[in-house]
Amino acid sequence: MQKPSIPKGTRDFSPDQLIRRNYIFDIIKSKFKKFGFLPIETPSIENLSTLTGKYGSEGDQLLFKILLRGEKFKKALKNSNENSTDHDFSLEALRYDLTVPFARYIVQHLNDLTFPFKRYQIQPVWRADRPQKGRYREFYQCDADIVGTNSLICEIELVSLITEILNELNLSDHTIMINNRKILYGLVETCNSIEYFSKITAIIDKIDKIGQNKVIEELKNNIPNQSCWELFNELFSLDNSTQIILSWLSKKLASNHEGLKGLQELNYIVDNAEELGINNLKINISLARGLDYYTGSIFEVILNNHSMGSIVGGGRYDNLTEVFGQSNLSGVGISFGAERIFDLMNEFSLFPSNLGISPKYMIIDQSDQPSNGLQVLKYLRDKDISAILYPDRHKLKKQLKYANSVKIPYIVFIKDSFNSKMNIELKNMESGLQVNTDISNLN
Amino acid sequence: MQKPSIPKGTRDFSPDQLIRRNYIFDIIKSKFKKFGFLPIETPSIENLSTLTGKYGSEGDQLLFKILLRGEKFKKALKNSNENSTDHDFSLEALRYDLTVPFARYIVQHLNDLTFPFKRYQIQPVWRADRPQKGRYREFYQCDADIVGTNSLICEIELVSLITEILNELNLSDHTIMINNRKILYGLVETCNSIEYFSKITAIIDKIDKIGQNKVIEELKNNIPNQSCWELFNELFSLDNSTQIILSWLSKKLASNHEGLKGLQELNYIVDNAEELGINNLKINISLARGLDYYTGSIFEVILNNHSMGSIVGGGRYDNLTEVFGQSNLSGVGISFGAERIFDLMNEFSLFPSNLGISPKYMIIDQSDQPSNGLQVLKYLRDKDISAILYPDRHKLKKQLKYANSVKIPYIVFIKDSFNSKMNIELKNMESGLQVNTDISNLN
Repeated sequence: MQKPSIPKGTRDFSPDQLIRRNYIFDIIKSKFKKFGFLPIETPSIENLSTLTGKYGSEGDQLLFKILLRGEKFKKALKNSNENSTDHDFSLEALRYDLTVPFARYIVQHLNDLTFPFKRYQIQPVWRADRPQKGRYREFYQCDADIVGTNSLICEIELVSLITEILNELNLSDHTIMINNRKILYGLVETCNSIEYFSKITAIIDKIDKIGQNKVIEELKNNIPNQSCWELFNELFSLDNSTQIILSWLSKKLASNHEGLKGLQELNYIVDNAEELGINNLKINISLARGLDYYTGSIFEVILNNHSMGSIVGGGRYDNLTEVFGQSNLSGVGISFGAERIFDLMNEFSLFPSNLGISPKYMIIDQSDQPSNGLQVLKYLRDKDISAILYPDRHKLKKQLKYANSVKIPYIVFIKDSFNSKMNIELKNMESGLQVNTDISNLN
Repeated sequence: MQKPSIPKGTRDFSPDQLIRRNYIFDIIKSKFKKFGFLPIETPSIENLSTLTGKYGSEGDQLLFKILLRGEKFKKALKNSNENSTDHDFSLEALRYDLTVPFARYIVQHLNDLTFPFKRYQIQPVWRADRPQKGRYREFYQCDADIVGTNSLICEIELVSLITEILNELNLSDHTIMINNRKILYGLVETCNSIEYFSKITAIIDKIDKIGQNKVIEELKNNIPNQSCWELFNELFSLDNSTQIILSWLSKKLASNHEGLKGLQELNYIVDNAEELGINNLKINISLARGLDYYTGSIFEVILNNHSMGSIVGGGRYDNLTEVFGQSNLSGVGISFGAERIFDLMNEFSLFPSNLGISPKYMIIDQSDQPSNGLQVLKYLRDKDISAILYPDRHKLKKQLKYANSVKIPYIVFIKDSFNSKMNIELKNMESGLQVNTDISNLN
């Protein structure tokens, strides 16, 4: 006899949890649709070659690889030596995110797609990461992307979409942080430190966690270029106002082509969002995530006054599909962290109280004929009313306890043979009130 | 540069297909809910020990096993020899079906559950089977089960549920075949062949494919018991009428305890279903699937006059959770073959023609200011109307071609600055008709 358990980092979802999770997914999905995104799904399993090399060497190690089977396994075992790696025993793996499979999808179905292609995808992904609070090995991603246009209208659309979804989820107290890789590149270029671009951006991205002083200290310790420390120190000492930051940037980047282009993009997005009444957008030049793939706008959304970290992330990428042989396709996308949103909404009790999906009526049959209960059930269901019949002849107390535990609002007691005008007793399980009525009154 | 592809037996689902798939899932889900089933989800990955030994040795070979990682992989490699099996390199696997994970779930969450527990579960499963038409390596199962009662009301409920779902899917021309393991057992017992039970049932189950003569021939070749051949030959020669079969069975099983019990169960279900107006139930004593786990009723649903095979299967099991240490929990469940249903509905064009989920309006901005289009978009969306804005300043022809290809019903042309009474041109993409109107008339 086995004591049952599940792999660490995975979860069972019971009805109560799943109903709340689906509430989140349904809202995200309906807004994605409203904004004109179309659904796709890709397989859970991808060829290993599709996934490796796309997430850095750390990412490769977090892949759940599928073991070779049958003769292929035997052959791999026979050919193995002490230097063999897990790659020698696997040709397939579970997807690590939805972005690389989407890039693969675009290239594979290129001839069937019309661009700009707006797709959404809500599916689980798997990472063999060290499990901890809020970090799971199997979790859902909710992505929306627009591929095949470099129009900044798309960025404004995504900002509108984020706002509409988070407001609908009662998470209106959030900030959408925005940056642009080209601005970062321009700034680093103006202080002649472009060979340290990755290092510099990795350091300044930590400012939220370690503060301005430590960031400047780290820059001093790692970047042999005083003008670089000074530039970022000046930037981080600015007043936290959009106008002041934009005007500072326009001065600093005045003669830098790439930086100026980034600044124009940022300006365009901020101006138009403002005109649409979106006032939760905030420029954050230290935002430097995803610079391996983002080439323009970078987004990250946080809840105000909360330490949870980012609940939505995204950005523009010009080279997404290049690795699969298709260049010149610019795209921009966002990804909702549904797991974190779920945890937050639980923490702040933001789920509607009437999320139950129990049937409205439970029939307790006190007549002699089991067919009476079944007839009543059929009568209600034919009126498209959700109902169940307690299946056993247990004591009344046990039946009521059951109805209570699965949160049935009303009990229908029947004592006679079924007819469509029959008398029933109706018990309101919340108030305890019991009334005599005609079955045709139920709705 | 890689030429992208996906593992064999897996599929990408493009919007057109996914919308149709979701139509099926949504109907199944809404009926499951209406009948009082609550949703659960379990992890894709289960401990290998949870899955192995549950599906026979053939099933074990079809498991997608997850390769050990890091130090554990190295250790397994070091300890390996030519007799090592894939089990030495894996501790986890993708689930093979939803039934065993459900049994594991029940036992693991026993203290949180109220019985009878009615759950539904719609998730993918994985089998490393030889892919062929209609058989995939990743596919969805749609299961509904009632656990914790042996009331035959549950069987009648499931028959009603199957009927309601298939009718809603326009697959009303189907037959629900029903049998009972106890009847099979009783019949085999009356001819003193119980040691050949598995062999006999496996042979008679093939009657649909190979016909009565071949079945009797196989019985003669494999079962050294003349009364057995004669009994089944007599059964299969009966007129195909419920009454005749039931009366024959009641005579044959008159003094067989187990068989009589099965017959009573079958009678009860057939009688009550008939009273509820369900007339697509058909007794089929040769139905002998799943006898490793089914202990009572056995169901299988086929489309009339079609060679597709079973589209729904199910049955009652008394020992489902025993292997995980919990006995005395009787359950009964059904599983919809969503993939086959999808193929059938495509074949017979049974999907509604208006399943598209494209936005109703696409805005083509012919004004000078990009913000005008965004304002119109916001105006429509604030009225909860689904709309998109073509993001680029491409030629009109290209924009209209795009709208056509993603099946947008109406184009909104704007030429002026936004105001809530502004004049627009509205083009019906199907009729080609174009009218002048006020933006407030859009809905």
